[in-house]
Amino acid sequence: MKKIYFITSNKGKLVEAQKKFSEIGIEVVQNNIGYPEIQADSLEEVAFFGVEHVLKNFKSPFILEDAGLFIDTLKGFPGVYSAYVFHTVGCDGVLKLMNDTKVKDRIAVFRSVFAYGKSDLKPHLFIGECKGVISIVKRGNNGFGYDPIFIPQNSDKTFAEMNISEKNSYSHRGKSLEKLIDFFKKI
Amino acid sequence: MKKIYFITSNKGKLVEAQKKFSEIGIEVVQNNIGYPEIQADSLEEVAFFGVEHVLKNFKSPFILEDAGLFIDTLKGFPGVYSAYVFHTVGCDGVLKLMNDTKVKDRIAVFRSVFAYGKSDLKPHLFIGECKGVISIVKRGNNGFGYDPIFIPQNSDKTFAEMNISEKNSYSHRGKSLEKLIDFFKKI
Repeated sequence: MKKIYFITSNKGKLVEAQKKFSEIGIEVVQNNIGYPEIQADSLEEVAFFGVEHVLKNFKSPFILEDAGLFIDTLKGFPGVYSAYVFHTVGCDGVLKLMNDTKVKDRIAVFRSVFAYGKSDLKPHLFIGECKGVISIVKRGNNGFGYDPIFIPQNSDKTFAEMNISEKNSYSHRGKSLEKLIDFFKKI
Repeated sequence: MKKIYFITSNKGKLVEAQKKFSEIGIEVVQNNIGYPEIQADSLEEVAFFGVEHVLKNFKSPFILEDAGLFIDTLKGFPGVYSAYVFHTVGCDGVLKLMNDTKVKDRIAVFRSVFAYGKSDLKPHLFIGECKGVISIVKRGNNGFGYDPIFIPQNSDKTFAEMNISEKNSYSHRGKSLEKLIDFFKKI
């Protein structure tokens, strides 16, 4: 394989994937056709449904990705709906929901699921996780989304206090992408 | 028409629809096949996608319904994801997010969308709304979901402090169902 499509409207994700795939000689081409994201309990279900939907109309091999922040004490909220919650109540809302949650109970995990679709294949999923805790206040100006309130395990900094390469060394998306690349090395 | 299917797993909604439809001589039969609910900004999009999905495999006329609570100061949150938010952060979480919101800014609206699907027809949507405010604390033990924190316009009681017939006189679902019935009277 020399080329794969990435069904995404997110330029940042595209660039990250292009960089990794170039190491194994595969070109990643953006495709903006989109797909319905279903309401489900897990990213896996969202990605699986997305792949099956795209496969109906698109015959070339492709990948797509979904990610979310799952907070233990909030029963996994905002989870699959992380983007929506970020654009409504935001980081401040999440901190407010946890204002009486002790430090030891502020456990959270960032998850990323890459899915690979090909017309004669069941969807393949590749999962990356980054465990950490939710900070007490917002810190840092880098990154995006929940980065100012997420401190990964084995660090004292939030994602928003790190530069890109430091963040990527912890990142959930870095890990799922790594697994995807390993898969492509074998086929 | 003598019979229509209601694609729902919710017995309460089924009984409410059966009662109304019996007045115009139509039997409502539950069908539990389900449909993917997409992540979208509006209930209309969720219902529309649901109808189009069901139509692919189901040839008899049917209805389905989606509902949500939209809070102004939270940019519409929990909105289309009301059920998910209720099962994670709940009424207490919503009150917490609004703990510094003044009474005059606690405006919210309950919305319900019924959709009618038939194989040779575009989906028809019927919308019902109930405006009101979010209470300062939870009150009452009746109803379900966000009923203990929602006070409809022209009342001092939360939905959870009302009996069923009082609640139904205000209810968003009562209104959308009424419009659906009017439509069926004309065809």
